[in-house]
Amino acid sequence: MQKRTLNRVLLAGATHGNELIGAFLIKKFEKFPDLIARSSFETQTLFGNPDAFAANVRYIDKDLNRSFNRQDATKEELLTYEELRARDIEQLFGSQGKTPADVIVDLHSTTANMGLTLIIDTDDVFTLQLVAYLSSVHPSIQIYHSANSGRGQDSLRSLGQFGLGIEVGPIAQGVLIADLFLKTEALIYTTLNYLEQINTETVPFFNQTLTQPLTIYRYIKAIDYPRDQLGEIQAMIHPQLQFKDYQPLHPGDPIFLTFDGQVIIYEEPSTVYPIFINEAAYYEKGIAMYFTEKQQITV
Amino acid sequence: MQKRTLNRVLLAGATHGNELIGAFLIKKFEKFPDLIARSSFETQTLFGNPDAFAANVRYIDKDLNRSFNRQDATKEELLTYEELRARDIEQLFGSQGKTPADVIVDLHSTTANMGLTLIIDTDDVFTLQLVAYLSSVHPSIQIYHSANSGRGQDSLRSLGQFGLGIEVGPIAQGVLIADLFLKTEALIYTTLNYLEQINTETVPFFNQTLTQPLTIYRYIKAIDYPRDQLGEIQAMIHPQLQFKDYQPLHPGDPIFLTFDGQVIIYEEPSTVYPIFINEAAYYEKGIAMYFTEKQQITV
Repeated sequence: MQKRTLNRVLLAGATHGNELIGAFLIKKFEKFPDLIARSSFETQTLFGNPDAFAANVRYIDKDLNRSFNRQDATKEELLTYEELRARDIEQLFGSQGKTPADVIVDLHSTTANMGLTLIIDTDDVFTLQLVAYLSSVHPSIQIYHSANSGRGQDSLRSLGQFGLGIEVGPIAQGVLIADLFLKTEALIYTTLNYLEQINTETVPFFNQTLTQPLTIYRYIKAIDYPRDQLGEIQAMIHPQLQFKDYQPLHPGDPIFLTFDGQVIIYEEPSTVYPIFINEAAYYEKGIAMYFTEKQQITV
Repeated sequence: MQKRTLNRVLLAGATHGNELIGAFLIKKFEKFPDLIARSSFETQTLFGNPDAFAANVRYIDKDLNRSFNRQDATKEELLTYEELRARDIEQLFGSQGKTPADVIVDLHSTTANMGLTLIIDTDDVFTLQLVAYLSSVHPSIQIYHSANSGRGQDSLRSLGQFGLGIEVGPIAQGVLIADLFLKTEALIYTTLNYLEQINTETVPFFNQTLTQPLTIYRYIKAIDYPRDQLGEIQAMIHPQLQFKDYQPLHPGDPIFLTFDGQVIIYEEPSTVYPIFINEAAYYEKGIAMYFTEKQQITV
Protein backbone atom coordinates (compact mmCIF):
# COMPACT_ATOMS: atom_id res chain seq x y z
CA MET A 1 0.00 0.00 0.00
CA GLN A 2 1.26 3.43 -0.96
CA LYS A 3 2.48 5.59 1.92
CA ARG A 4 0.02 8.34 2.65
CA THR A 5 -0.29 10.76 5.53
CA LEU A 6 -3.70 12.03 6.54
CA ASN A 7 -3.57 15.22 8.54
CA ARG A 8 -7.21 16.02 9.13
CA VAL A 9 -10.44 14.05 9.18
CA LEU A 10 -13.76 15.84 9.25
CA LEU A 11 -16.87 14.21 10.72
CA ALA A 12 -20.00 16.03 9.59
CA GLY A 13 -23.62 15.60 10.66
CA ALA A 14 -26.87 17.56 10.48
CA THR A 15 -26.02 18.46 6.90
CA HIS A 16 -29.74 17.77 6.68
CA GLY A 17 -31.36 19.30 9.75
CA ASN A 18 -33.99 16.62 10.35
CA GLU A 19 -31.63 13.65 10.14
CA LEU A 20 -31.14 13.33 13.87
CA ILE A 21 -28.70 10.44 14.17
CA GLY A 22 -25.89 12.44 12.56
CA ALA A 23 -26.88 15.57 14.44
CA PHE A 24 -26.77 13.97 17.88
CA LEU A 25 -23.62 11.99 17.10
CA ILE A 26 -21.81 15.23 16.27
CA LYS A 27 -23.14 16.77 19.49
CA LYS A 28 -21.85 13.74 21.38
CA PHE A 29 -18.41 13.95 19.75
CA GLU A 30 -18.18 17.66 20.46
CA LYS A 31 -19.00 16.96 24.12
CA PHE A 32 -16.62 13.99 24.38
CA PRO A 33 -13.82 14.75 21.88
CA ASP A 34 -11.65 11.96 23.25
CA LEU A 35 -13.97 9.49 21.55
CA ILE A 36 -12.82 10.61 18.12
CA ALA A 37 -9.27 11.80 18.86
CA ARG A 38 -6.55 9.72 17.26
CA SER A 39 -2.79 10.26 17.64
CA SER A 40 -1.75 10.64 14.01
CA PHE A 41 -4.34 13.10 12.68
CA GLU A 42 -6.65 15.82 13.84
CA THR A 43 -10.37 14.93 13.94
CA GLN A 44 -12.64 17.89 13.33
CA THR A 45 -16.41 18.00 13.58
CA LEU A 46 -19.02 19.98 11.69
CA PHE A 47 -22.66 20.50 12.63
CA GLY A 48 -23.74 21.15 9.07
CA ASN A 49 -27.00 23.05 9.13
CA PRO A 50 -27.82 24.43 12.59
CA ASP A 51 -30.76 26.58 11.44
CA ALA A 52 -32.40 23.64 9.69
CA PHE A 53 -31.82 21.47 12.77
CA ALA A 54 -33.46 24.10 14.98
CA ALA A 55 -36.46 24.22 12.64
CA ASN A 56 -36.49 20.40 12.31
CA VAL A 57 -36.41 20.55 8.52
CA ARG A 58 -34.00 19.23 5.92
CA TYR A 59 -32.97 22.73 4.85
CA ILE A 60 -34.09 26.34 5.11
CA ASP A 61 -33.80 27.60 1.51
CA LYS A 62 -31.94 24.98 -0.46
CA ASP A 63 -30.53 21.50 0.14
CA LEU A 64 -27.09 22.13 1.70
CA ASN A 65 -25.81 18.84 0.36
CA ARG A 66 -26.46 20.08 -3.18
CA SER A 67 -24.84 23.47 -2.57
CA PHE A 68 -21.13 22.77 -2.95
CA ASN A 69 -20.97 23.66 -6.59
CA ARG A 70 -17.72 25.56 -7.04
CA GLN A 71 -19.25 27.88 -9.63
CA ASP A 72 -21.98 29.00 -7.22
CA ALA A 73 -19.38 29.92 -4.61
CA THR A 74 -17.94 32.70 -6.72
CA LYS A 75 -21.16 34.37 -7.77
CA GLU A 76 -21.83 37.81 -6.38
CA GLU A 77 -25.61 37.70 -6.20
CA LEU A 78 -27.55 37.35 -3.00
CA LEU A 79 -26.90 33.93 -1.58
CA THR A 80 -29.38 31.74 0.28
CA TYR A 81 -28.73 30.61 3.84
CA GLU A 82 -27.35 27.30 2.62
CA GLU A 83 -25.21 28.89 -0.09
CA LEU A 84 -23.63 31.12 2.52
CA ARG A 85 -23.20 28.16 4.82
CA ALA A 86 -21.60 26.13 2.02
CA ARG A 87 -19.18 28.99 1.31
CA ASP A 88 -18.21 29.19 4.99
CA ILE A 89 -17.75 25.43 5.20
CA GLU A 90 -15.62 25.39 2.06
CA GLN A 91 -13.45 28.22 3.40
CA LEU A 92 -12.76 26.08 6.45
CA PHE A 93 -12.47 22.54 5.13
CA GLY A 94 -12.08 22.79 1.34
CA SER A 95 -8.79 22.14 -0.41
CA GLN A 96 -7.97 25.87 -0.33
CA GLY A 97 -9.50 26.32 3.12
CA LYS A 98 -8.02 27.14 6.50
CA THR A 99 -7.88 23.53 7.71
CA PRO A 100 -8.38 21.37 4.61
CA ALA A 101 -9.87 17.96 5.29
CA ASP A 102 -8.11 14.95 3.84
CA VAL A 103 -11.09 12.76 4.58
CA ILE A 104 -14.71 13.85 5.07
CA VAL A 105 -17.24 11.45 6.56
CA ASP A 106 -20.78 12.86 6.31
CA LEU A 107 -23.57 11.24 8.33
CA HIS A 108 -27.04 10.85 6.85
CA SER A 109 -30.19 8.86 7.39
CA THR A 110 -33.06 7.84 5.15
CA THR A 111 -36.63 6.58 5.25
CA ALA A 112 -35.56 3.90 2.77
CA ASN A 113 -34.45 0.49 4.00
CA MET A 114 -30.78 1.14 3.25
CA GLY A 115 -29.42 -0.55 6.38
CA LEU A 116 -25.87 0.70 6.88
CA THR A 117 -24.75 2.08 3.55
CA LEU A 118 -21.41 3.60 2.57
CA ILE A 119 -21.61 6.08 -0.28
CA ILE A 120 -18.52 6.59 -2.41
CA ASP A 121 -18.07 8.77 -5.47
CA THR A 122 -14.73 7.61 -6.86
CA ASP A 123 -12.81 4.49 -7.79
CA ASP A 124 -9.46 5.43 -6.27
CA VAL A 125 -7.60 2.70 -4.41
CA PHE A 126 -7.64 4.50 -1.07
CA THR A 127 -11.44 4.81 -1.03
CA LEU A 128 -12.05 1.27 -2.25
CA GLN A 129 -9.66 -0.18 0.33
CA LEU A 130 -11.35 1.86 3.05
CA VAL A 131 -14.84 0.58 2.25
CA ALA A 132 -13.53 -2.96 1.70
CA TYR A 133 -12.01 -2.85 5.17
CA LEU A 134 -15.17 -1.42 6.76
CA SER A 135 -17.29 -4.03 5.11
CA SER A 136 -14.97 -6.78 6.35
CA VAL A 137 -15.49 -5.54 9.93
CA HIS A 138 -19.22 -4.78 9.55
CA PRO A 139 -20.44 -7.44 7.09
CA SER A 140 -24.00 -6.06 6.86
CA ILE A 141 -22.70 -2.92 5.15
CA GLN A 142 -23.78 -2.13 1.59
CA ILE A 143 -21.66 0.01 -0.72
CA TYR A 144 -23.31 2.47 -3.08
CA HIS A 145 -21.17 4.03 -5.80
CA SER A 146 -22.70 7.35 -6.82
CA ALA A 147 -20.16 8.47 -9.42
CA ASN A 148 -22.62 8.52 -12.31
CA SER A 149 -25.15 10.58 -10.32
CA GLY A 150 -23.14 13.78 -10.11
CA ARG A 151 -23.34 13.80 -6.35
CA GLY A 152 -19.55 13.77 -6.15
CA GLN A 153 -19.58 17.35 -7.47
CA ASP A 154 -22.01 19.21 -5.20
CA SER A 155 -22.07 17.32 -1.90
CA LEU A 156 -20.39 18.34 1.31
CA ARG A 157 -18.16 15.26 1.21
CA SER A 158 -16.89 16.36 -2.20
CA LEU A 159 -14.85 19.07 -0.45
CA GLY A 160 -12.42 16.51 0.95
CA GLN A 161 -9.55 14.83 -0.81
CA PHE A 162 -11.53 11.68 0.00
CA GLY A 163 -15.22 11.64 0.80
CA LEU A 164 -17.42 9.03 2.40
CA GLY A 165 -21.16 9.25 3.02
CA ILE A 166 -22.79 7.10 5.69
CA GLU A 167 -26.50 6.55 5.11
CA VAL A 168 -28.62 4.58 7.60
CA GLY A 169 -32.23 3.56 7.50
CA PRO A 170 -35.08 3.06 7.54
CA ILE A 171 -35.73 5.91 9.95
CA ALA A 172 -38.29 8.70 9.84
CA GLN A 173 -37.14 12.29 9.66
CA GLY A 174 -37.13 13.98 13.05
CA VAL A 175 -36.60 10.89 15.19
CA LEU A 176 -33.77 8.94 16.74
CA ILE A 177 -33.63 5.16 16.73
CA ALA A 178 -31.09 3.94 19.25
CA ASP A 179 -30.12 0.79 17.40
CA LEU A 180 -29.18 2.72 14.24
CA PHE A 181 -27.44 5.43 16.31
CA LEU A 182 -25.22 2.78 17.94
CA LYS A 183 -24.42 1.07 14.64
CA THR A 184 -23.46 4.37 13.02
CA GLU A 185 -21.30 5.29 15.99
CA ALA A 186 -19.49 1.95 15.86
CA LEU A 187 -18.84 2.40 12.15
CA ILE A 188 -17.29 5.81 12.77
CA TYR A 189 -14.87 4.40 15.34
CA THR A 190 -13.88 1.62 12.94
CA THR A 191 -13.28 4.24 10.26
CA LEU A 192 -11.13 6.42 12.48
CA ASN A 193 -9.13 3.41 13.69
CA TYR A 194 -8.49 2.34 10.11
CA LEU A 195 -7.31 5.83 9.14
CA GLU A 196 -4.98 5.78 12.13
CA GLN A 197 -3.58 2.47 10.91
CA ILE A 198 -3.04 3.96 7.47
CA ASN A 199 -0.99 6.77 8.96
CA THR A 200 0.99 4.49 11.24
CA GLU A 201 1.38 1.81 8.56
CA THR A 202 -0.24 -0.80 10.77
CA VAL A 203 -3.18 -1.74 8.60
CA PRO A 204 -3.90 -5.36 9.42
CA PHE A 205 -3.64 -7.85 6.62
CA PHE A 206 -7.03 -8.64 5.34
CA ASN A 207 -6.02 -10.36 2.16
CA GLN A 208 -8.11 -13.32 3.01
CA THR A 209 -11.21 -11.17 3.02
CA LEU A 210 -10.18 -9.39 -0.13
CA THR A 211 -9.81 -12.54 -2.11
CA GLN A 212 -13.59 -12.27 -1.91
CA PRO A 213 -14.66 -9.68 -4.45
CA LEU A 214 -16.32 -6.58 -3.06
CA THR A 215 -19.97 -6.01 -4.01
CA ILE A 216 -20.86 -2.47 -4.99
CA TYR A 217 -24.08 -0.97 -6.34
CA ARG A 218 -23.39 1.56 -9.05
CA TYR A 219 -25.85 4.36 -9.88
CA ILE A 220 -27.63 4.02 -13.22
CA LYS A 221 -30.43 6.59 -13.03
CA ALA A 222 -33.21 8.06 -10.91
CA ILE A 223 -36.83 6.97 -11.41
CA ASP A 224 -39.76 9.27 -10.62
CA TYR A 225 -43.26 8.42 -9.44
CA PRO A 226 -46.03 8.44 -12.03
CA ARG A 227 -47.45 11.98 -11.91
CA ASP A 228 -50.34 13.88 -13.43
CA GLN A 229 -49.98 17.02 -15.51
CA LEU A 230 -49.86 19.13 -12.34
CA GLY A 231 -46.96 17.10 -11.00
CA GLU A 232 -48.94 15.31 -8.31
CA ILE A 233 -48.03 11.70 -7.72
CA GLN A 234 -50.52 9.11 -8.93
CA ALA A 235 -49.03 5.97 -7.43
CA MET A 236 -47.15 4.52 -4.50
CA ILE A 237 -44.20 2.15 -4.34
CA HIS A 238 -45.70 -1.31 -4.88
CA PRO A 239 -45.93 -3.30 -1.62
CA GLN A 240 -43.67 -5.98 -3.10
CA LEU A 241 -40.91 -3.40 -3.69
CA GLN A 242 -41.30 -1.32 -0.50
CA PHE A 243 -38.31 -1.81 1.87
CA LYS A 244 -36.59 -4.05 -0.74
CA ASP A 245 -33.57 -1.83 -1.32
CA TYR A 246 -30.57 -3.69 -2.81
CA GLN A 247 -32.74 -6.59 -3.96
CA PRO A 248 -33.08 -7.47 -7.65
CA LEU A 249 -35.93 -5.97 -9.65
CA HIS A 250 -36.51 -8.18 -12.65
CA PRO A 251 -38.32 -7.27 -15.88
CA GLY A 252 -42.01 -7.90 -15.23
CA ASP A 253 -41.84 -7.26 -11.47
CA PRO A 254 -44.33 -4.76 -10.01
CA ILE A 255 -42.85 -1.36 -9.23
CA PHE A 256 -45.77 1.03 -8.52
CA LEU A 257 -49.39 0.73 -7.41
CA THR A 258 -51.68 3.55 -8.52
CA PHE A 259 -54.21 4.99 -6.07
CA ASP A 260 -56.99 3.34 -8.03
CA GLY A 261 -55.35 -0.06 -7.76
CA GLN A 262 -53.48 -0.55 -11.03
CA VAL A 263 -50.14 -2.32 -10.89
CA ILE A 264 -47.31 -0.74 -12.88
CA ILE A 265 -44.67 -3.19 -14.02
CA TYR A 266 -40.92 -2.70 -14.46
CA GLU A 267 -40.55 -3.09 -18.20
CA GLU A 268 -36.91 -2.46 -18.99
CA PRO A 269 -34.86 -5.41 -20.28
CA SER A 270 -32.24 -5.66 -17.50
CA THR A 271 -32.43 -6.61 -13.86
CA VAL A 272 -31.59 -3.63 -11.64
CA TYR A 273 -31.10 -3.11 -7.89
CA PRO A 274 -33.25 -0.22 -6.63
CA ILE A 275 -32.06 1.80 -3.65
CA PHE A 276 -33.36 4.89 -1.81
CA ILE A 277 -36.83 3.44 -2.38
CA ASN A 278 -39.45 5.84 -0.96
CA GLU A 279 -37.03 8.34 0.58
CA ALA A 280 -39.20 11.13 2.00
CA ALA A 281 -36.91 13.96 0.94
CA TYR A 282 -36.87 12.79 -2.67
CA TYR A 283 -40.59 13.22 -3.42
CA GLU A 284 -39.96 16.91 -4.12
CA LYS A 285 -36.88 16.08 -6.18
CA GLY A 286 -38.91 13.81 -8.47
CA ILE A 287 -37.20 10.63 -7.34
CA ALA A 288 -39.02 7.47 -6.26
CA MET A 289 -35.82 5.40 -6.21
CA TYR A 290 -32.43 5.02 -7.85
CA PHE A 291 -31.70 2.11 -10.10
CA THR A 292 -28.24 0.63 -9.60
CA GLU A 293 -26.32 -2.21 -11.12
CA LYS A 294 -24.64 -4.75 -8.89
CA GLN A 295 -20.96 -5.27 -9.53
CA GLN A 296 -18.28 -7.46 -8.04
CA ILE A 297 -14.90 -5.81 -7.98
CA THR A 298 -11.52 -6.90 -6.76
CA VAL A 299 -9.78 -4.38 -4.55
CA MET B 1 -79.73 -1.74 19.91
CA GLN B 2 -81.30 1.69 20.19
CA LYS B 3 -82.70 3.10 16.96
CA ARG B 4 -80.53 5.86 15.66
CA THR B 5 -80.42 7.68 12.36
CA LEU B 6 -77.16 9.03 11.07
CA ASN B 7 -77.54 11.74 8.47
CA ARG B 8 -73.99 12.75 7.72
CA VAL B 9 -70.60 11.10 8.03
CA LEU B 10 -67.44 13.15 7.57
CA LEU B 11 -64.19 11.55 6.43
CA ALA B 12 -61.24 13.84 7.14
CA GLY B 13 -57.58 13.55 6.16
CA ALA B 14 -54.53 15.81 5.89
CA THR B 15 -55.51 17.32 9.22
CA HIS B 16 -51.75 17.04 9.55
CA GLY B 17 -50.24 18.06 6.23
CA ASN B 18 -47.36 15.56 6.17
CA GLU B 19 -49.44 12.48 6.99
CA LEU B 20 -49.88 11.38 3.41
CA ILE B 21 -52.03 8.28 3.71
CA GLY B 22 -55.04 10.28 4.92
CA ALA B 23 -54.32 13.05 2.44
CA PHE B 24 -54.24 10.78 -0.61
CA LEU B 25 -57.21 8.72 0.57
CA ILE B 26 -59.31 11.88 0.76
CA LYS B 27 -58.09 12.87 -2.71
CA LYS B 28 -59.07 9.42 -3.96
CA PHE B 29 -62.53 9.62 -2.38
CA GLU B 30 -63.10 13.08 -3.83
CA LYS B 31 -62.17 11.74 -7.27
CA PHE B 32 -64.27 8.56 -6.90
CA PRO B 33 -67.16 9.56 -4.59
CA ASP B 34 -69.05 6.34 -5.34
CA LEU B 35 -66.53 4.50 -3.20
CA ILE B 36 -67.82 6.18 -0.05
CA ALA B 37 -71.45 6.85 -0.99
CA ARG B 38 -74.00 4.89 1.03
CA SER B 39 -77.77 4.99 0.57
CA SER B 40 -78.87 5.99 4.07
CA PHE B 41 -76.55 8.90 4.85
CA GLU B 42 -74.46 11.53 3.14
CA THR B 43 -70.69 11.00 3.19
CA GLN B 44 -68.71 14.22 3.18
CA THR B 45 -64.96 14.63 2.86
CA LEU B 46 -62.57 17.18 4.29
CA PHE B 47 -58.99 17.84 3.22
CA GLY B 48 -58.00 19.29 6.58
CA ASN B 49 -54.94 21.43 6.11
CA PRO B 50 -54.19 22.16 2.44
CA ASP B 51 -51.48 24.75 3.11
CA ALA B 52 -49.60 22.37 5.41
CA PHE B 53 -49.95 19.60 2.82
CA ALA B 54 -48.55 21.88 0.11
CA ALA B 55 -45.60 22.74 2.36
CA ASN B 56 -45.20 19.09 3.44
CA VAL B 57 -45.33 19.99 7.13
CA ARG B 58 -47.64 19.00 9.96
CA TYR B 59 -48.99 22.54 10.31
CA ILE B 60 -48.20 26.12 9.31
CA ASP B 61 -48.64 28.04 12.58
CA LYS B 62 -50.28 25.72 15.07
CA ASP B 63 -51.36 22.07 15.20
CA LEU B 64 -54.83 22.06 13.56
CA ASN B 65 -55.82 18.99 15.55
CA ARG B 66 -55.30 20.98 18.76
CA SER B 67 -57.22 24.01 17.50
CA PHE B 68 -60.87 23.05 18.03
CA ASN B 69 -61.15 24.62 21.43
CA ARG B 70 -64.57 26.31 21.50
CA GLN B 71 -63.26 29.25 23.55
CA ASP B 72 -60.62 30.09 20.95
CA ALA B 73 -63.25 30.21 18.23
CA THR B 74 -64.99 33.22 19.73
CA LYS B 75 -61.94 35.36 20.38
CA GLU B 76 -61.58 38.50 18.32
CA GLU B 77 -57.80 38.68 18.13
CA LEU B 78 -55.83 37.88 15.04
CA LEU B 79 -56.14 34.20 14.37
CA THR B 80 -53.45 31.93 12.99
CA TYR B 81 -53.95 30.04 9.75
CA GLU B 82 -55.03 26.92 11.63
CA GLU B 83 -57.35 28.84 13.98
CA LEU B 84 -59.10 30.33 10.96
CA ARG B 85 -59.22 26.94 9.33
CA ALA B 86 -60.67 25.38 12.50
CA ARG B 87 -63.35 28.07 12.64
CA ASP B 88 -64.29 27.46 9.01
CA ILE B 89 -64.42 23.71 9.56
CA GLU B 90 -66.56 24.08 12.66
CA GLN B 91 -68.95 26.37 10.79
CA LEU B 92 -69.40 23.62 8.24
CA PHE B 93 -69.38 20.40 10.24
CA GLY B 94 -69.84 21.36 13.92
CA SER B 95 -73.09 20.78 15.79
CA GLN B 96 -74.23 24.34 14.96
CA GLY B 97 -72.70 24.23 11.49
CA LYS B 98 -74.19 24.21 8.04
CA THR B 99 -74.01 20.43 7.57
CA PRO B 100 -73.36 19.00 11.04
CA ALA B 101 -71.54 15.66 11.05
CA ASP B 102 -73.05 12.86 13.09
CA VAL B 103 -69.86 10.84 12.79
CA ILE B 104 -66.37 12.14 12.06
CA VAL B 105 -63.60 9.75 11.06
CA ASP B 106 -60.21 11.49 10.99
CA LEU B 107 -57.26 9.77 9.30
CA HIS B 108 -53.79 10.02 10.80
CA SER B 109 -50.46 8.26 10.65
CA THR B 110 -47.54 7.98 13.03
CA THR B 111 -43.87 7.06 13.15
CA ALA B 112 -44.71 4.85 16.14
CA ASN B 113 -45.49 1.17 15.64
CA MET B 114 -49.21 1.60 16.29
CA GLY B 115 -50.37 -0.79 13.57
CA LEU B 116 -54.02 -0.01 12.83
CA THR B 117 -55.31 1.91 15.85
CA LEU B 118 -58.78 3.29 16.51
CA ILE B 119 -58.82 6.29 18.81
CA ILE B 120 -61.98 6.93 20.81
CA ASP B 121 -62.65 9.63 23.37
CA THR B 122 -65.88 8.50 25.01
CA ASP B 123 -67.52 5.45 26.59
CA ASP B 124 -70.91 5.73 24.93
CA VAL B 125 -72.50 2.53 23.68
CA PHE B 126 -72.58 3.61 20.01
CA THR B 127 -68.83 4.26 19.89
CA LEU B 128 -67.92 1.11 21.80
CA GLN B 129 -70.13 -1.05 19.58
CA LEU B 130 -68.61 0.56 16.49
CA VAL B 131 -65.02 -0.22 17.52
CA ALA B 132 -66.02 -3.68 18.77
CA TYR B 133 -67.49 -4.41 15.36
CA LEU B 134 -64.47 -3.05 13.49
CA SER B 135 -62.14 -5.07 15.64
CA SER B 136 -64.19 -8.22 14.97
CA VAL B 137 -63.75 -7.66 11.23
CA HIS B 138 -60.12 -6.51 11.40
CA PRO B 139 -58.66 -8.49 14.33
CA SER B 140 -55.27 -6.77 14.25
CA ILE B 141 -56.85 -3.47 15.29
CA GLN B 142 -55.89 -1.87 18.61
CA ILE B 143 -58.22 0.48 20.46
CA TYR B 144 -56.83 3.49 22.27
CA HIS B 145 -59.14 5.36 24.63
CA SER B 146 -57.93 8.95 24.93
CA ALA B 147 -60.59 10.34 27.28
CA ASN B 148 -58.16 11.19 30.08
CA SER B 149 -55.81 13.02 27.69
CA GLY B 150 -58.10 15.93 26.89
CA ARG B 151 -57.86 15.21 23.17
CA GLY B 152 -61.63 14.79 23.01
CA GLN B 153 -61.96 18.54 23.58
CA ASP B 154 -59.69 20.13 20.97
CA SER B 155 -59.42 17.62 18.13
CA LEU B 156 -61.15 17.80 14.78
CA ARG B 157 -63.09 14.61 15.51
CA SER B 158 -64.50 16.27 18.67
CA LEU B 159 -66.76 18.36 16.40
CA GLY B 160 -68.92 15.35 15.58
CA GLN B 161 -71.64 13.83 17.67
CA PHE B 162 -69.39 10.76 17.50
CA GLY B 163 -65.69 10.90 16.70
CA LEU B 164 -63.23 8.24 15.63
CA GLY B 165 -59.54 8.67 14.93
CA ILE B 166 -57.68 6.19 12.75
CA GLU B 167 -53.95 6.12 13.38
CA VAL B 168 -51.64 3.89 11.33
CA GLY B 169 -47.94 3.27 11.62
CA PRO B 170 -45.07 3.01 11.65
CA ILE B 171 -44.65 5.37 8.71
CA ALA B 172 -42.37 8.34 8.23
CA GLN B 173 -43.85 11.77 7.68
CA GLY B 174 -43.97 12.75 4.03
CA VAL B 175 -44.19 9.25 2.55
CA LEU B 176 -46.82 6.78 1.46
CA ILE B 177 -46.62 3.08 2.23
CA ALA B 178 -49.02 1.16 0.03
CA ASP B 179 -49.70 -1.64 2.50
CA LEU B 180 -50.85 0.79 5.20
CA PHE B 181 -52.79 2.84 2.65
CA LEU B 182 -54.75 -0.26 1.59
CA LYS B 183 -55.41 -1.34 5.19
CA THR B 184 -56.69 2.11 6.12
CA GLU B 185 -58.89 2.21 3.03
CA ALA B 186 -60.40 -1.20 3.86
CA LEU B 187 -61.13 -0.07 7.41
CA ILE B 188 -62.98 2.99 6.13
CA TYR B 189 -65.23 0.87 3.91
CA THR B 190 -65.99 -1.45 6.83
CA THR B 191 -66.85 1.59 8.94
CA LEU B 192 -69.17 3.06 6.32
CA ASN B 193 -70.86 -0.30 5.77
CA TYR B 194 -71.45 -0.69 9.50
CA LEU B 195 -72.95 2.81 9.75
CA GLU B 196 -75.23 1.94 6.85
CA GLN B 197 -76.33 -1.18 8.73
CA ILE B 198 -77.04 0.91 11.81
CA ASN B 199 -79.32 3.17 9.79
CA THR B 200 -81.05 0.29 8.04
CA GLU B 201 -81.22 -1.81 11.21
CA THR B 202 -79.33 -4.64 9.57
CA VAL B 203 -76.34 -4.85 11.85
CA PRO B 204 -75.26 -8.48 11.78
CA PHE B 205 -75.29 -10.36 15.01
CA PHE B 206 -71.85 -10.55 16.39
CA ASN B 207 -72.74 -11.69 19.87
CA GLN B 208 -70.38 -14.58 19.60
CA THR B 209 -67.47 -12.23 19.13
CA LEU B 210 -68.71 -9.92 21.86
CA THR B 211 -68.84 -12.61 24.44
CA GLN B 212 -65.10 -12.05 24.18
CA PRO B 213 -64.33 -8.90 26.13
CA LEU B 214 -62.94 -5.98 24.14
CA THR B 215 -59.38 -4.89 24.92
CA ILE B 216 -58.84 -1.16 25.16
CA TYR B 217 -55.79 0.87 26.14
CA ARG B 218 -56.74 3.83 28.29
CA TYR B 219 -54.55 6.94 28.51
CA ILE B 220 -52.77 7.46 31.84
CA LYS B 221 -50.22 10.17 31.11
CA ALA B 222 -47.57 11.44 28.72
CA ILE B 223 -43.87 10.82 29.40
CA ASP B 224 -41.15 13.18 28.14
CA TYR B 225 -37.59 12.43 27.13
CA PRO B 226 -34.85 13.23 29.62
CA ARG B 227 -33.77 16.78 28.75
CA ASP B 228 -31.07 19.21 29.85
CA GLN B 229 -31.74 22.67 31.26
CA LEU B 230 -32.03 24.08 27.71
CA GLY B 231 -34.69 21.54 26.85
CA GLU B 232 -32.52 19.45 24.55
CA ILE B 233 -33.13 15.71 24.72
CA GLN B 234 -30.40 13.65 26.40
CA ALA B 235 -31.59 10.17 25.59
CA MET B 236 -33.31 7.98 23.03
CA ILE B 237 -36.01 5.36 23.37
CA HIS B 238 -34.21 2.24 24.59
CA PRO B 239 -33.77 -0.34 21.80
CA GLN B 240 -35.79 -2.87 23.82
CA LEU B 241 -38.76 -0.48 23.90
CA GLN B 242 -38.54 0.94 20.34
CA PHE B 243 -41.44 -0.29 18.15
CA LYS B 244 -42.99 -2.11 21.19
CA ASP B 245 -46.21 -0.11 21.30
CA TYR B 246 -49.04 -1.90 23.17
CA GLN B 247 -46.62 -4.28 24.86
CA PRO B 248 -46.23 -4.36 28.65
CA LEU B 249 -43.55 -2.22 30.29
CA HIS B 250 -42.79 -3.72 33.68
CA PRO B 251 -41.12 -2.02 36.62
CA GLY B 252 -37.38 -2.44 36.10
CA ASP B 253 -37.56 -2.57 32.30
CA PRO B 254 -35.30 -0.20 30.33
CA ILE B 255 -37.08 2.81 28.89
CA PHE B 256 -34.39 5.27 27.67
CA LEU B 257 -30.74 5.08 26.61
CA THR B 258 -28.73 8.27 27.10
CA PHE B 259 -26.34 9.42 24.40
CA ASP B 260 -23.42 8.46 26.64
CA GLY B 261 -24.73 4.94 27.06
CA GLN B 262 -26.59 4.94 30.38
CA VAL B 263 -29.75 2.88 30.63
CA ILE B 264 -32.73 4.57 32.29
CA ILE B 265 -35.16 2.17 33.93
CA TYR B 266 -38.93 2.41 34.29
CA GLU B 267 -39.29 2.72 38.05
CA GLU B 268 -42.99 3.16 38.73
CA PRO B 269 -44.77 0.37 40.59
CA SER B 270 -47.34 -0.69 37.95
CA THR B 271 -47.01 -2.32 34.58
CA VAL B 272 -48.10 0.06 31.81
CA TYR B 273 -48.60 -0.25 28.04
CA PRO B 274 -46.72 2.51 26.20
CA ILE B 275 -48.06 3.77 22.86
CA PHE B 276 -47.04 6.52 20.44
CA ILE B 277 -43.46 5.53 21.26
CA ASN B 278 -41.07 7.84 19.38
CA GLU B 279 -43.68 9.75 17.38
CA ALA B 280 -41.76 12.39 15.40
CA ALA B 281 -44.32 15.15 15.89
CA TYR B 282 -44.28 14.72 19.66
CA TYR B 283 -40.63 15.66 20.27
CA GLU B 284 -41.58 19.34 20.21
CA LYS B 285 -44.60 18.64 22.42
CA GLY B 286 -42.41 17.09 25.12
CA ILE B 287 -43.80 13.60 24.65
CA ALA B 288 -41.69 10.46 24.22
CA MET B 289 -44.69 8.14 24.61
CA TYR B 290 -48.03 7.78 26.35
CA PHE B 291 -48.52 5.33 29.15
CA THR B 292 -51.81 3.47 28.96
CA GLU B 293 -53.48 0.83 31.06
CA LYS B 294 -54.89 -2.25 29.40
CA GLN B 295 -58.53 -2.96 30.17
CA GLN B 296 -60.96 -5.66 29.17
CA ILE B 297 -64.49 -4.38 28.81
CA THR B 298 -67.74 -6.00 27.87
CA VAL B 299 -69.67 -4.16 25.19
